[in-house]
Amino acid sequence: MAGTTSLIMRTVLLFSVVLISRTTAVRYTANWTSIDSRPLPPWYDEAKIGIFIHWGVFSVPGFGQFSEWFWWWWQGAKRQAEVDFMNKHYPPNFQYADFAHNFRAQFYNPDDWADIFEASGAKYVVFVSKHHEGFCNWPSDVSWNWNSMDTGPHRDLVGELAEAVRKRKGLHFGLYHSLFEWFHPLYLKDKASGFKTQEFVFQKTLPELVHLVNTYKPELIWSDGDWEAPDTYWNSTEFLAWLYNDSPVKDYVIVNDRWGKGCYCTHGGYYNCADRFTPGTLPAHKWEKCQSVDNRSWGYRRNMKLIELMDLPGIIKDMVYVVALGGNYLLNISPMEDGMISPLFEERLRGMGGWLAVNGEAIYASKPWRVQGENATVPVWYTSRSNTVYAIMLEWPSKLMLNLEVPKTTKATVVTLLDNPSEPLKWVPTEPAGMVVLLPDDTPLSQGQAWVLKLEGVK
Amino acid sequence: MAGTTSLIMRTVLLFSVVLISRTTAVRYTANWTSIDSRPLPPWYDEAKIGIFIHWGVFSVPGFGQFSEWFWWWWQGAKRQAEVDFMNKHYPPNFQYADFAHNFRAQFYNPDDWADIFEASGAKYVVFVSKHHEGFCNWPSDVSWNWNSMDTGPHRDLVGELAEAVRKRKGLHFGLYHSLFEWFHPLYLKDKASGFKTQEFVFQKTLPELVHLVNTYKPELIWSDGDWEAPDTYWNSTEFLAWLYNDSPVKDYVIVNDRWGKGCYCTHGGYYNCADRFTPGTLPAHKWEKCQSVDNRSWGYRRNMKLIELMDLPGIIKDMVYVVALGGNYLLNISPMEDGMISPLFEERLRGMGGWLAVNGEAIYASKPWRVQGENATVPVWYTSRSNTVYAIMLEWPSKLMLNLEVPKTTKATVVTLLDNPSEPLKWVPTEPAGMVVLLPDDTPLSQGQAWVLKLEGVK
Amino acid sequence: MAGTTSLIMRTVLLFSVVLISRTTAVRYTANWTSIDSRPLPPWYDEAKIGIFIHWGVFSVPGFGQFSEWFWWWWQGAKRQAEVDFMNKHYPPNFQYADFAHNFRAQFYNPDDWADIFEASGAKYVVFVSKHHEGFCNWPSDVSWNWNSMDTGPHRDLVGELAEAVRKRKGLHFGLYHSLFEWFHPLYLKDKASGFKTQEFVFQKTLPELVHLVNTYKPELIWSDGDWEAPDTYWNSTEFLAWLYNDSPVKDYVIVNDRWGKGCYCTHGGYYNCADRFTPGTLPAHKWEKCQSVDNRSWGYRRNMKLIELMDLPGIIKDMVYVVALGGNYLLNISPMEDGMISPLFEERLRGMGGWLAVNGEAIYASKPWRVQGENATVPVWYTSRSNTVYAIMLEWPSKLMLNLEVPKTTKATVVTLLDNPSEPLKWVPTEPAGMVVLLPDDTPLSQGQAWVLKLEGVK
Amino acid sequence: MAGTTSLIMRTVLLFSVVLISRTTAVRYTANWTSIDSRPLPPWYDEAKIGIFIHWGVFSVPGFGQFSEWFWWWWQGAKRQAEVDFMNKHYPPNFQYADFAHNFRAQFYNPDDWADIFEASGAKYVVFVSKHHEGFCNWPSDVSWNWNSMDTGPHRDLVGELAEAVRKRKGLHFGLYHSLFEWFHPLYLKDKASGFKTQEFVFQKTLPELVHLVNTYKPELIWSDGDWEAPDTYWNSTEFLAWLYNDSPVKDYVIVNDRWGKGCYCTHGGYYNCADRFTPGTLPAHKWEKCQSVDNRSWGYRRNMKLIELMDLPGIIKDMVYVVALGGNYLLNISPMEDGMISPLFEERLRGMGGWLAVNGEAIYASKPWRVQGENATVPVWYTSRSNTVYAIMLEWPSKLMLNLEVPKTTKATVVTLLDNPSEPLKWVPTEPAGMVVLLPDDTPLSQGQAWVLKLEGVK
Repeated sequence: MAGTTSLIMRTVLLFSVVLISRTTAVRYTANWTSIDSRPLPPWYDEAKIGIFIHWGVFSVPGFGQFSEWFWWWWQGAKRQAEVDFMNKHYPPNFQYADFAHNFRAQFYNPDDWADIFEASGAKYVVFVSKHHEGFCNWPSDVSWNWNSMDTGPHRDLVGELAEAVRKRKGLHFGLYHSLFEWFHPLYLKDKASGFKTQEFVFQKTLPELVHLVNTYKPELIWSDGDWEAPDTYWNSTEFLAWLYNDSPVKDYVIVNDRWGKGCYCTHGGYYNCADRFTPGTLPAHKWEKCQSVDNRSWGYRRNMKLIELMDLPGIIKDMVYVVALGGNYLLNISPMEDGMISPLFEERLRGMGGWLAVNGEAIYASKPWRVQGENATVPVWYTSRSNTVYAIMLEWPSKLMLNLEVPKTTKATVVTLLDNPSEPLKWVPTEPAGMVVLLPDDTPLSQGQAWVLKLEGVK
Repeated sequence: MAGTTSLIMRTVLLFSVVLISRTTAVRYTANWTSIDSRPLPPWYDEAKIGIFIHWGVFSVPGFGQFSEWFWWWWQGAKRQAEVDFMNKHYPPNFQYADFAHNFRAQFYNPDDWADIFEASGAKYVVFVSKHHEGFCNWPSDVSWNWNSMDTGPHRDLVGELAEAVRKRKGLHFGLYHSLFEWFHPLYLKDKASGFKTQEFVFQKTLPELVHLVNTYKPELIWSDGDWEAPDTYWNSTEFLAWLYNDSPVKDYVIVNDRWGKGCYCTHGGYYNCADRFTPGTLPAHKWEKCQSVDNRSWGYRRNMKLIELMDLPGIIKDMVYVVALGGNYLLNISPMEDGMISPLFEERLRGMGGWLAVNGEAIYASKPWRVQGENATVPVWYTSRSNTVYAIMLEWPSKLMLNLEVPKTTKATVVTLLDNPSEPLKWVPTEPAGMVVLLPDDTPLSQGQAWVLKLEGVK
Repeated sequence: MAGTTSLIMRTVLLFSVVLISRTTAVRYTANWTSIDSRPLPPWYDEAKIGIFIHWGVFSVPGFGQFSEWFWWWWQGAKRQAEVDFMNKHYPPNFQYADFAHNFRAQFYNPDDWADIFEASGAKYVVFVSKHHEGFCNWPSDVSWNWNSMDTGPHRDLVGELAEAVRKRKGLHFGLYHSLFEWFHPLYLKDKASGFKTQEFVFQKTLPELVHLVNTYKPELIWSDGDWEAPDTYWNSTEFLAWLYNDSPVKDYVIVNDRWGKGCYCTHGGYYNCADRFTPGTLPAHKWEKCQSVDNRSWGYRRNMKLIELMDLPGIIKDMVYVVALGGNYLLNISPMEDGMISPLFEERLRGMGGWLAVNGEAIYASKPWRVQGENATVPVWYTSRSNTVYAIMLEWPSKLMLNLEVPKTTKATVVTLLDNPSEPLKWVPTEPAGMVVLLPDDTPLSQGQAWVLKLEGVK
Repeated sequence: MAGTTSLIMRTVLLFSVVLISRTTAVRYTANWTSIDSRPLPPWYDEAKIGIFIHWGVFSVPGFGQFSEWFWWWWQGAKRQAEVDFMNKHYPPNFQYADFAHNFRAQFYNPDDWADIFEASGAKYVVFVSKHHEGFCNWPSDVSWNWNSMDTGPHRDLVGELAEAVRKRKGLHFGLYHSLFEWFHPLYLKDKASGFKTQEFVFQKTLPELVHLVNTYKPELIWSDGDWEAPDTYWNSTEFLAWLYNDSPVKDYVIVNDRWGKGCYCTHGGYYNCADRFTPGTLPAHKWEKCQSVDNRSWGYRRNMKLIELMDLPGIIKDMVYVVALGGNYLLNISPMEDGMISPLFEERLRGMGGWLAVNGEAIYASKPWRVQGENATVPVWYTSRSNTVYAIMLEWPSKLMLNLEVPKTTKATVVTLLDNPSEPLKWVPTEPAGMVVLLPDDTPLSQGQAWVLKLEGVK
């Protein structure tokens, strides 16, 4: 019947860029071999530090462990804490969608956010455009009345942040996007069919992804929510081929590895692997660790307590280890429903920025060294840039002497402390390799409690 | 690309009944000549009286002339009354979707409704499943979080009413459905394309219509909201062909005539023509007049006043005229957001039922007579059943004598008043035709202020 | 200590009018013998018909039998219906005071109300200034943040209505006032003391009563909520002495009889006795029956149904009986929280006004006749004015003949029907007394279903 | 009239303890000479550090400079920021009382609070029982429906905190109480009379103060809101005489100096003088500085930013200076409306506690020394206990040598650093007085950035 033609036409429109795109040197095809062969645009590895932001309807109840999953805990898993919380504080027939009404964002000032992100020393931002709850933080035309323009804030949260972030030189803008939505009826239908039908993918996921890319031109797409269905259900390779070949961001976009069951740690751009992935040795593929200041949640928890949050030394320690092992570090903060970033999160980010202002040379655009770390006197992690090696101490040695066993000194060896780069430090070689460095009397104050020795002329 | 296949598959599934349906004697094809050739199932003309029910998110503000168009008045037409109302009573950034949160339906008891509808003497019910605002009064899976299950009442309003109505023998259940939705992004996209694309139709309208039919098996579909686009955009003939050939209601379903620009009063089932259509002479095609007890609105107006509402005699007068001219009479009432039917509406419906309990014989299953009305003594409308003619007086003649000029009496002529059928009335013939009837001394009390003379043996 | 002087000073201020009032002919002293000796100002007996209006925070839940007692049913008596209602629809910790937030009155237009009251034929209005819940419908300065100016409507409901009512010539303005408040902490303290302390009376009740009188100059005070404590606790005779001697309304104010345990039907102005008091024979003292259109409630019930409401004939019948027995009839309606009077209530009031427009001569300023009623043909109640007697028929005699057994005819006897006063009716005397009246052929339409014969020249 | 007797009786009851109290050695009379002669119970001077907590309806809007004055800024002073905020985010007719509905306290766990307060090293807590807005954080029976039990939290916030605080040994519990209430109608009446009437004082202020004292037995009353009226209006000396002679807390209660216009810095217990009072030299009378972590507000501001908040070194510096000058330090934090203490405030309090855990010996129960401070090498403040002197350094001397000019050394002089008390430091005397102390190589990490030298055997 006539409808078929219309549907095909729609599909063509959706990917219409294909038809008019210029012929480029390399084109990727919709299979993993081809997709995986694309080199990562270099900005990402150089950036090293990103800020992750989880904000959505879940920020309204703002409750419980991993609050961004509130809907699921409450009505999917029926976890006791959330069930009790709702019974205690809300009317009997209150539903999750009712929270959207109270997602106000009245203090949301993306310029304030961007100021903080810039001050944190991060070089990219990854903002949740839509989490598993399906609420779109931008005016999606396939999520009518379940997006931030139609309900709640009545603003384009994504668009406003994109604009503010891009005013800051050196901050890249990326978007988190969940492929699946726990309770979307079309997803549930497809799921019930064993993912043989793809109504959800064609009516929701792909239109939205394409809309996001065309509208906000994200430099990074942090895909998630892929694990229940194979990449063939999600049409992932088709989407990525379009993204790499013909989208407006094709030349610089970065993606991660969550594109279907079995994909993570295997296909895509860089690897996130599991949440808070912590490799023991240097991975062969570019990776990223995402970590939340709030150890118990990515989304805001109104009832969080200090002890549950990372302190600055903990963040620096984590970041240093990740960078030493070749990873990027994506640190998450959780705005409140009113659009404020809790001062404690702000303090952590500015604290990280303070540390990076002194020690960033050892981080940005660094490469893993031949050895990642050692522990002779205090825990030390290594990074490098060209011929320079950085030894990052996570404690200040108590006797003002640091023994490093790995570096091989030369005649040209010069050692300085980044806190005070104008005064080279004394050192003596040790056998068979290594050196002992004499540290200065006055311990440099470091809120992050990590100090960097710059080793020039070592092997 | 692979997607095309999936889309076709989806379309096939949507109308999959086609493939497995049995061969029936008559099949309709997707063009108006064929569709229009289908005879109306007889129940509809016999039913004569229906109740129309407008309920939706618009019932929450419940304000202004034609309150069911509140969203449009406020943000489309920017009508002063609605703009002022919102400025005066709601926060600056309040949006229409925020009303859904307060659509509670806490007193909604469909059995109470069905009791009233049954008592009204109506034989069918037409319930708004979705008005132009797009809010679905049932759990549509293509209107996520903008339907009565996900937000507001958190109940299946359509399903519950269908069940309650069907418990009443002799009450047919129908659904109103708006093809367009003022502000649906996909509709706006299609409209911007000059209705060349049909994303809205294939992703929203048709899936929902099919879902409604398959789930609730409505005996009547009261289509609306068609006028901006041609029936080819809406795929109306395809839908109706499926409805008449293969749907679960194919044997008895009735539809109206609003299926695309230019369709009304021309194509479809019975004709509604314009709202409150009032023909001057007997139409050639079965028609229906819909009329609201609240003269100024189909949806509930919290600020309605008595003077703006029809009184019972006005309703009876209107109904009698419509039936005399071969129409059906669909009387609208407007529930409140909490699910109550205002006692005044209840009074009107029960009043109509009281009148019909005495005089229904002149209405149900009646046919227009050879003459529709006359006005010699008082206004009189005629209906007929087989050889019996009913003269419906809209006033009680002051001298207790009624002159009818049209009926030709015979020897067998017997006249009775339906209020007191056991005592035939005296009458005398007049020349060249007609008769004078002597009415009884005691005026029968009629809240509806209309009395019916049953004329047997007249021509 | 110094405080005592201040307290005395305060008391003096409270009743300071005493000190500056002029010497009048008659002064009342603070004991029942004196208070009861005051003649009723004549306007009240002449007025006959009043409208009672229950509006308050209770109108927000608007639920259950005698909804104005909602708070008590729910948290005092813990009546199942109200407990279930709250459990089902409100959050667990929701308290009664939280309802005030949603008492909006956004459609409250006192002029519309006054139009309806005037059209009803009533001659006075009694508005609830404060019910047992203690919420003041005016800005009381001893009920801070629990009154209609500080919370909810943010308007002076009493003041606005007073002004609107007084614009209508012939409408008197009265106020209902509850002496006690179920849950006021000071009242509970006094109660716990066996009413030996009077903190509540001196800090709340009396200041508010005096404030109401001085500010709104009510022509009637409908006291209530007296029954738990003796009048000596309430300081009732002192208050009434001030009201009668020195208040700005002393010359025309009317009060009822609820001024302390044991007072009703015994002391005060006119007698209400119990709610819906229905005496069997002519009482010796002026009395009033209050009656609600909603048989089940004085306050608005969102879930009321038609069958629970009085119809117009029932109201007329009730009113006629009351007036025949020398009472006043105070008919209650229940506005909604938004300030609208439900059209059904409006219909009843306008219906009563329609009947009184024809038959008011038999009601206003009438006196009970020597016999109150009889029932020879149909139920008849008598009233009188000077030498004229009115026979009010509650049915239309089926044979167009009415037998009255009580009136003694004379040569001067003239009988007319108020529906058609220009055409005297034929009548014949009967023995030993009485008469038979011939009624006209055309039954006059009477929505109230009561017809009045005016009998001149009978005894 | 009879009322007078009742009023006197009430007054007697109010202060009934008078009549039954035992004769004690010293009784105070209601004049300042007597009241001021009472010695301060010693616990207060020893405690040194307190936590101030501002929580109320103002925490709901949580907006603007000195947010606890929100009502006044908005509707009294009509400050632009607050007026704009309300216009932008709330409905046109929204009033301050409407905020109470959203004061939820759903996460209020007084034990968590008490844990934090205990961990902060503070020895007393001062909780706002009622601020100028008049909202009572306990079930006051003269503030019906404008207190935390009737509306909002529906809990006794004062009582619950009192209980939790008292479970912590060494934490004293005090209450802040505002004498005046900006908008209380009775206060406004008294004010309009030039404070000649005292309705507000006798019906509101005094009953509430007495209720607070009798119910919660606060060890400290932090009076405020006194400045518009003289102490004779407030009956302050009468109240204090009762408090000191006969109240249940008479033996240990402490009060401040805000008891009427002209009282502060002159009468009462200890002196607060103006907010954030900062004397230049050692005051002659015991005093207290209150200071808020949020420099711009005592109440919570949802839109506060990190830069507006005190950091830990700033707090320690402020506290040290205050103690050196003989004051107590009352540090304010601002809970959120939901009952949580923002993690940043928690971090500051725990940080202070961390510093005090090491250095508290120099603070608690200390006395000012003969010299308060000096600045030869780095800023140093002195405190003392018996013969021991504490030199508190606000910076770590860069050359590891500290010159103190004031202490006169003796043979018995021993110097230790509280961070490492087991290893006495080397020192040399200087002429004519003073000494040079050699500090250890490893700078002790101090989050508060202040270090304490304990000087034994100096003069």
